Amino acid sequence: MANVITPRAKDSPQWYLDIVKEAGLADNSDVRGCMVIKPTGYAIWEKMQRGLDRMFKDTGHVNAYFPLFIPMSYLAKEEEMAEGFAKECAVVTHYRLKAEKGQPLKVDPTAELEEPLIVRPTSETIIWRTYKDWIQSYRDLPILVNQWANVVRWEMRTRLFLRTTEFLWQEGHTAHANQQEAEEETLRMVNVYKAFAEEFMAMPVMVGPKSEGQKFPGAIYTLCIEAMMQDGKALQAGTSHFLGQNFAKAFDCSFQNEKGQREFAWATSWGASTRLIGGLIMTHSDDNGLVCPPRLAPVHVAIVPLGRTDAERAPAIAAAEKLAAELRGLPRDDFFSYEPITVKIDVMFDKQPGYRYAEHELRGVPVRVEIGPKDLEKQACAVARRDVPGKEGKQFGIPLDGATAHINTLLRDIQASLLKKAKAYRDAGLKTADTYAEFQEKLELGGFVAAHWDGTRETEDKIQAETKATIRCIPFAENGLEVAPGSCMVTGAPSKQRVLFARAY
Amino acid sequence: MANVITPRAKDSPQWYLDIVKEAGLADNSDVRGCMVIKPTGYAIWEKMQRGLDRMFKDTGHVNAYFPLFIPMSYLAKEEEMAEGFAKECAVVTHYRLKAEKGQPLKVDPTAELEEPLIVRPTSETIIWRTYKDWIQSYRDLPILVNQWANVVRWEMRTRLFLRTTEFLWQEGHTAHANQQEAEEETLRMVNVYKAFAEEFMAMPVMVGPKSEGQKFPGAIYTLCIEAMMQDGKALQAGTSHFLGQNFAKAFDCSFQNEKGQREFAWATSWGASTRLIGGLIMTHSDDNGLVCPPRLAPVHVAIVPLGRTDAERAPAIAAAEKLAAELRGLPRDDFFSYEPITVKIDVMFDKQPGYRYAEHELRGVPVRVEIGPKDLEKQACAVARRDVPGKEGKQFGIPLDGATAHINTLLRDIQASLLKKAKAYRDAGLKTADTYAEFQEKLELGGFVAAHWDGTRETEDKIQAETKATIRCIPFAENGLEVAPGSCMVTGAPSKQRVLFARAY
Repeated sequence: MANVITPRAKDSPQWYLDIVKEAGLADNSDVRGCMVIKPTGYAIWEKMQRGLDRMFKDTGHVNAYFPLFIPMSYLAKEEEMAEGFAKECAVVTHYRLKAEKGQPLKVDPTAELEEPLIVRPTSETIIWRTYKDWIQSYRDLPILVNQWANVVRWEMRTRLFLRTTEFLWQEGHTAHANQQEAEEETLRMVNVYKAFAEEFMAMPVMVGPKSEGQKFPGAIYTLCIEAMMQDGKALQAGTSHFLGQNFAKAFDCSFQNEKGQREFAWATSWGASTRLIGGLIMTHSDDNGLVCPPRLAPVHVAIVPLGRTDAERAPAIAAAEKLAAELRGLPRDDFFSYEPITVKIDVMFDKQPGYRYAEHELRGVPVRVEIGPKDLEKQACAVARRDVPGKEGKQFGIPLDGATAHINTLLRDIQASLLKKAKAYRDAGLKTADTYAEFQEKLELGGFVAAHWDGTRETEDKIQAETKATIRCIPFAENGLEVAPGSCMVTGAPSKQRVLFARAY
Repeated sequence: MANVITPRAKDSPQWYLDIVKEAGLADNSDVRGCMVIKPTGYAIWEKMQRGLDRMFKDTGHVNAYFPLFIPMSYLAKEEEMAEGFAKECAVVTHYRLKAEKGQPLKVDPTAELEEPLIVRPTSETIIWRTYKDWIQSYRDLPILVNQWANVVRWEMRTRLFLRTTEFLWQEGHTAHANQQEAEEETLRMVNVYKAFAEEFMAMPVMVGPKSEGQKFPGAIYTLCIEAMMQDGKALQAGTSHFLGQNFAKAFDCSFQNEKGQREFAWATSWGASTRLIGGLIMTHSDDNGLVCPPRLAPVHVAIVPLGRTDAERAPAIAAAEKLAAELRGLPRDDFFSYEPITVKIDVMFDKQPGYRYAEHELRGVPVRVEIGPKDLEKQACAVARRDVPGKEGKQFGIPLDGATAHINTLLRDIQASLLKKAKAYRDAGLKTADTYAEFQEKLELGGFVAAHWDGTRETEDKIQAETKATIRCIPFAENGLEVAPGSCMVTGAPSKQRVLFARAY
């Protein structure tokens, strides 16, 4: 395969789409804005699901499933939500088609629903309608439920994984007996996302609340994780909302508290989606294709036996099979979510070695092992790491007896190296600006710009209109940035702390 | 808790609904025909997914994801499918709502779709439209893809898990270079379902093709697994369809074969759904509640420490925690899909022991361990197995030192015993009939009735109209039933073999 990836430096959006396509991650479908997630892309999603799901369960959550359809009147009950999602709703109005011989298939006009159904854009309303039946007393709380589901938000401009009409996600919806517990949960879950982003995706993130202008419709406040892509644009990668009593009030969901009084329940919701796959791609990949952290890689190791004749190939294949069996047989552990290491033996002998290597690089396989006749003379193999392209990342003469342990260690090292590298990139791009002119200048360089802001929607809107930058988050002190007061770079009014601006996906 | 389950002998449908409700498996929602799958029900589904998914992958399949929406014109391309599903389709006609201050939320009439979208009732059409782009040459085949998804079939009469408007399922869609491979796949996958039903669900099944009248719309033939519920009614639990070239032709999906000729690809599809949870309940449960095979149980072991005073309770709780830690720490193995054993320690000391025991029985926990002051004097515990209710299934004096191994073995024994018991029940109910009068008489007793049938749709329809029984399958010889020719019990015309009739869900 010739290298089919447009260089990132030349055209970053095309580079992204080339990787999505050529690494077999996703395709556009004929259905406007809906994507087909191809096997390699879906395998990454499965591993993300497994990692996140384990973290949710370790923090006391269980999964459940709620209806795809939401009666229009439910959405109307929470005004901000209705306004926030009205323009993106797919609406089911009929429940039957008419198929008559010789006639074109059509919607049956006699089968109109009394009340239109919305395909869920998010499930707060249907879930809080359900919780009303589940919650009678403080003893029924907390409810700590998550749902893995598809959702639909009608989008006019879409981009694979990053913005699609239908996407896959998880949405946690919890109910609590008091405000403090709900706020603790909101914070706990944004930290789960942070841990997942860093430990599984090797993607460092900034954590903090959104500004009022960027929060979720219906939330009191929204906490988020924000990552920095290699093109200098930010990506919101997960959000956790403190919803107060808004949804409990909208659905009359009250409970008897310990003092015997009726009280509305306190809510949170939190979600992360297949958008994460877009973030993964843009954080690590290079001009050779996908770079995937080992913990999320569909294939961990590609073994490439080499040889010009059958006589040369047979022992190479045998050695490859032996190594593959050893790798697959390693004890399962938490690092790989108790799944075996996945090994692919490449038998594309009709292709040149260079083509074969490029193919595995394109698909982001973290480790490639080459076994040729000369290696076998020394009972050895060559091991190449995907995160360090070229000769620098390739070690020759690794003894076959011991290669399994070497590769197992290498996979863990690649995971750690990717995070370190991404963090160094992100931090190098992080700038501060004290004046609006300085801000505009630094914004052009990409990356987060930390600047003082007066806290008003008006100033936020003005900055966005003039620079296309948005406030990504008001960073917590835990991010390691200084939290100190100052003056708004635009109005000069007092500011409690610098906030992080960036252009974003 | 008083026993809240209607006895099965008194009212089997109510017994079923009581278990679904009281064991916390599912609820009806306000959205017509759509259910809420509650945490315990969903935990069973997750374990089913994990077991099936492993089997799919072990047979070479990968997962992918295709759009929720299907353009109406796609459905129209395959005539049988259009006719088969037209009356059950949820139709999206608009993509926006109108939210104006002070006005009720409404569908925006200016946002009507040019072409209505169907919420997928099954995905053959959208997938074969996609495969057209994936398949150019025989080298692209086979495609062995599965999808985990929600589907919608508008149902007028619904019953939790067994028949709902929205349900969760998996649908495999494979493409092959020739008929033989596709037929082999069709058979392979029905056998995967059989293995899953028996090994995980402990639910014995009959395997064979459906009659023409019962096959899937668009299929050449349909293979199925059929289980027998405790009320004598059959349940179709999984189907595998040989689709021939129907969908490839409908979507113009041809490839260049090894001889350089264009040929249409050969297709299969196969699916199993949350309906399996209904089958699980009706196969094993009793008047005390859910009985769940250990391999699919959300909680494997409930430990009930006992004591009247804090001084009595403290050592019981400590012993419970020690035992729980030992059980959770057992090496992970294939039997439990490489997940740890799940243990719940019951601290409902404000309830009587009998209430506490009943609660775990209701929820189908396979093993209950009781640890009270008298047990502790002997450093022992009592161990009760859910599948054998009452004293018969309870062993006293199991030494705490060794209880972990005892329980681990017991869980495996329960799994095997449930299958054996269900098989004995199914086989005891299996009858043969040689005349139509005998058939009608035996049908009233419940269970499968093996009878000769002339192979015509007309006779099949007549039997169904008169007896409500349908042909569940034309059993393969592998089921152990005699396959020999005879004469149709209704018309006397020749019959190749007995087929299995039953009333069914």
